[in-house]
This record gives sequence, C-alpha cells and structure tokens, in this order.
Amino acid sequence: MIVVFTGGTSGAKLVQGLQQVTASSSASAGSPSCADFAHDGVLELTVIVNTGDDIEWWGLHVSPDIDSVLYALAGLLSKDRGWGVDGDSFRCLERMKQLGQPFWFSLGDLDLATHLMRTVMLRAGKTLTEATSELAVKLGIRARVLPMSDDRVSTMLDTAEGTLTFQEYFVRERHQVEVRAVRFEGAEQARPAPGVVEAIEHAEAIIFAPSNPVTSIGPILAVPGIRDALRRTKAPIAAVSPIVGGAAVSGPAGKLMQMMGWPSSISGVARAYEDFLDVLVVDEADQHEAQELRRHGLWVCCTRTIMRSAEDKRNLAQTALDFCKAIDKSRVAATSN
Amino acid sequence: MIVVFTGGTSGAKLVQGLQQVTASSSASAGSPSCADFAHDGVLELTVIVNTGDDIEWWGLHVSPDIDSVLYALAGLLSKDRGWGVDGDSFRCLERMKQLGQPFWFSLGDLDLATHLMRTVMLRAGKTLTEATSELAVKLGIRARVLPMSDDRVSTMLDTAEGTLTFQEYFVRERHQVEVRAVRFEGAEQARPAPGVVEAIEHAEAIIFAPSNPVTSIGPILAVPGIRDALRRTKAPIAAVSPIVGGAAVSGPAGKLMQMMGWPSSISGVARAYEDFLDVLVVDEADQHEAQELRRHGLWVCCTRTIMRSAEDKRNLAQTALDFCKAIDKSRVAATSN
Repeated sequence: MIVVFTGGTSGAKLVQGLQQVTASSSASAGSPSCADFAHDGVLELTVIVNTGDDIEWWGLHVSPDIDSVLYALAGLLSKDRGWGVDGDSFRCLERMKQLGQPFWFSLGDLDLATHLMRTVMLRAGKTLTEATSELAVKLGIRARVLPMSDDRVSTMLDTAEGTLTFQEYFVRERHQVEVRAVRFEGAEQARPAPGVVEAIEHAEAIIFAPSNPVTSIGPILAVPGIRDALRRTKAPIAAVSPIVGGAAVSGPAGKLMQMMGWPSSISGVARAYEDFLDVLVVDEADQHEAQELRRHGLWVCCTRTIMRSAEDKRNLAQTALDFCKAIDKSRVAATSN
Repeated sequence: MIVVFTGGTSGAKLVQGLQQVTASSSASAGSPSCADFAHDGVLELTVIVNTGDDIEWWGLHVSPDIDSVLYALAGLLSKDRGWGVDGDSFRCLERMKQLGQPFWFSLGDLDLATHLMRTVMLRAGKTLTEATSELAVKLGIRARVLPMSDDRVSTMLDTAEGTLTFQEYFVRERHQVEVRAVRFEGAEQARPAPGVVEAIEHAEAIIFAPSNPVTSIGPILAVPGIRDALRRTKAPIAAVSPIVGGAAVSGPAGKLMQMMGWPSSISGVARAYEDFLDVLVVDEADQHEAQELRRHGLWVCCTRTIMRSAEDKRNLAQTALDFCKAIDKSRVAATSN
C-alpha cells in the first residue's frame, strides 16, 4: 500500500500521478518497481487529506482539499482552475450574489451536489470518513481517501487584519495579508480518522505531495498520533518539494515557511519534515542546494517536479516511488548485515 | 388591506393579478373600487400561504407554495412550468442523479439559492415567517407573504400505495394513485404564524385563490384559530373556484373533493368554505350551477376565471375585489338601516 499525504490543488496533481501508476500496475505487469509493492497485481493507494481548511458555506460542509482529491481521482478536476469540477457553471452563485449573500467563496452548480450530499450525511450522523468514502464510491474511485480526522480542526491565521480562517486568508484576501502565526484550532483534542495511523504503519511507501508544509500538511501533522506514527513506521518516506528555485510553485508556501522560521527553499521543506523524512524529491533547478542537503545526510532526488501534463504527473509519482523502493531495499540490506 | 389565501401554481397567478391591481392603485388613482380600499394611495396585499407540502430535500427546507408566491410576486416564476424560476437550469440536479441521489423532485440551480438561504436562516433559529420576510425583501417584493404557521404541518395522503407526503403523491406519483384520506399532521398543535389572524381581522377583503380546497387551502384552515377568525371577521370573503365546468383547471382538486364527499363542481367549492364564504367567483361555463347556488342564498359572480395573460389575472383580481366591495357596502347599508 502506498500512502500519500496531501492538501488540495498542487497535491491533487501528484495524487493523479500516483493513481496512474497504481492503475497501470493493476492493468499489466507495470513498472518493476511498482509491481514489487503490489498485492495480487493491484497497487493500493491511500490518500490522507488535510481538513483544516474545511468551511461551512451557505450552510453546507465544504471540504475543499478532499473535494480536489476526489475530483482529481474521478477525472473531474478543473484543469483551468485547479479546483472544482471541470466545465462547471456558477448560476446558483450568481443568484446568491443577487440575493445579497456572501459570494467570495465559489461553489459551482455541479460542485454543489457534492456538498449537499456530504452535508446530508454528516447531519444524519455519519462521520467525515464515512461521508468521504460514500462520495468516493459514487464517483467510481478505487483509491481510499481519508480525512486526517473526523474531529473538527480549523487552521486559523493571525494576520495584520485580525484572525482569519484559512479560506478567508487564501480565497477572500488572496493570501496578500501578512501572517504572524498559524494555529490549528481543535487539533489538540482531535484524533486521527480511523485507518490513518494503520495506513502509516502498514504502508510500503509514504509520499508527501508538494503541498504547503505549513497550512496543507501542517494541520495533518498537528493531529496527535500522526507524527508519532510517521516517526515509527518502517515505510520509506519521501516528500516532493513545493518549493522550486527558492519560490513556491503556487500559493503562499514560501512566505508561510519564512514566518515559521524555516528557509523558503528545499532546505525549509527538509526542515518541516526532518524528524521522519527519508528522501526529498526536488526540482533540477535546486541541484546546488540539493548537494548541500546530501552533505547533511538526507537522500535527495533531483528530477523534473513541475507537473503540466499527465505524463509529468506519472513520471514524478514513479520517481518518488522508485526512490522509496531503493531506500526500502537499502534498509533490508542494512538489517540483513 | 387585501388578504389572499393561496397554495402554489394556480393560486400564484391570482396573486400576480392582485399585485397588479395594488401596484396600479399605488401608482395612480387606479380603479375606483380599489382606491376605496387603499391607504395613502397604497393598497396593501397580504398573502397567506400553505406550508403543508413543505419538504426536506437534499437537506434543504423547501416551501414549494411560498416559493411559487415569492417568484410570482418577483416576476421570476416560470410561465412554462408554473413552478420554479424562469430560465433556470438543472445541472446540480443532473449531478445528484449521477451520484445516485433522489431526483424526482426538481430543484433548479437558481432555485437552489432560495432553499439554501431559507435553510441557513431556519438553522440559525429564525422562524419560517422571518425567513420568508427576509427572502421577500431580497427579492424586492412589497406585498407581505406569510406562511400559515411557523409550526410544522405535513399534509399526508393515505393511498392505495400507502401513506405519502403531498410531494410524493403530487410530484413523484403524478397524483395518479387513489387517495382514501387526507390528514394534516401536526395541525392540531400548530399555531397560526404571527400576523395571520390579525390580517384576517383587519382585512378589508379576503380572497381565496383558485387553489385546491383540500390540499392547498385545507392545511391552512386546519391550523386552529384561522377558520374561527374567518368566521368572525367583518371583511367580505370571496373564493375563486378552481373547478371550471365540473373539472379542476389543473391538478387533482376534483378527485380529492369527491374523496371528501363534496361534489367536484362549484357547489363543492361552496361547500368547502360554506361557514365563512360571502361570494363565490366562478367561470362563465358554470352559469347554470351558479344559478342553483344563488337560490340557496350565496352571492355568485360569473366571470372569465381561466388566467392565461397578465390581463386575465388582473381582470379576475379586480372582479373579485369589486364584488367584495359591493358586499362590504351592502353590509354597511344593512348596519345603518
């Protein structure tokens, strides 16, 4: 089983790549490196997703990162926008605007169906894990998609404009306000969703998608028990850097990493995951700094990490898995020595 | 103040007619008969609406009759369908269908905004009266739209296929199943919404729209206190017959009236409202039976009651009001004698 940790937009691309790799390994012999991880010819994929930026919008429970992952896996994710359903319309949103309702957070007409379904299930007493699983089944998804927790954790940002929820900061303010601190409200009392710790324990490889280490992966790691499981697991752990050439590929990752006191570079990514990371997958643009990190004992893989095409996504996923396999083998070798 | 009792589709047409009459009287001297009812040149319209067929759909509180009235008054009601918003699309509905969700009850993408807004308000603790008033304001409506009650009353039909809610009977089964009894669940404990009894008491004329007397007006009259207020009020009360030439203009009114033991004719309508009715407004097609009713002491007005154009609606509203005024004057004359 391959486990991937992810937030929304950028992470969802790597999830698509991993899906391709797993789908191909189930259809045929596939690449040798993946066939090694496969059971009965099927490489299982478990996606653990950030829910710190969930939002109650128009009375509906919206899980933006889970939705991006579901839509990515179902082949529905809008390529233009990077979120929501491809070819969606926004008529209900326009009407809400006319009715004087808040409209800075866009929900499409097709997208609404997901939120309506989820909200009905949650109101009926189902957990977010159960609701997500049900949505995945209805969307024909074979991978397992798990929220980080069934308990409410809210990413809150203390900014120059006051305390904002993640969506207020990211969407409404277009991440243009200065952030002084990030907090994960409710994290201390939260428990990992059923299956999360088990997936980490039984994984054959764990990949961190190139999501924001502070606000996309940070909330997941803040749930007590998850970080410990990552430190404990025997599975090799790789992270794909969201920072390329010293800047975030998209979004405010660089700024937020600096705010945390980390360099806004691949070294900062290594720092964010230092207590459990085995391999850092970085872009060829960062070869120089990669060399530096290697000197400090970290495995670093330089490859093309910008994902534009389906092939880019697949190649990156494959490379990350290949490296995990190499580490796994080196561990086996070390143990047998 | 003019008070109109109504259900959805057919009733909404007369509400539009009454709105025209009141709007014209506020804009100019208007017709003398209406100017007599006007205060400060503005003829106020209060619409009391059936909520017995409200439905929880996709987790949203839908009030089909209130919505038809709101859309009619806002000039948004679909002429083709007779319900929902003109020019609406059904993309969310299509998606719900693809996701294996129930889809026999159609909510349009624009229509959804209304239900989302109402549901948020109700969940926040507002009453249906408050939520309806807020929607009316946002839609730019000047008339007062009141639900019959803020308490839940559910029209239930005992049929050959078991007990059905009104929407299951009317929409899902297209009113093709045999009905054995109609019950208004919760009516005994329900209280009239704030303003309903006061409107009846202070009305200058009360009009019953040509809605189904059993399932559209029936639930309103089943709320304790409303029927008593109608018996007590000094306002003249007119009803426009939904039965023309011995058959319902649309829907199952005829069949349901027979089930109640009433003739499915204008006499049946007179019977439904016999304890408070002053004038029955019937179609010219029913002149013969009208004569019969007059012999039993009821005022009957024969006119064109089929509403196809805006002019039809206006004329019918005007005629009903004129008759009320005539009765009002005759009462004043009787009192002064």
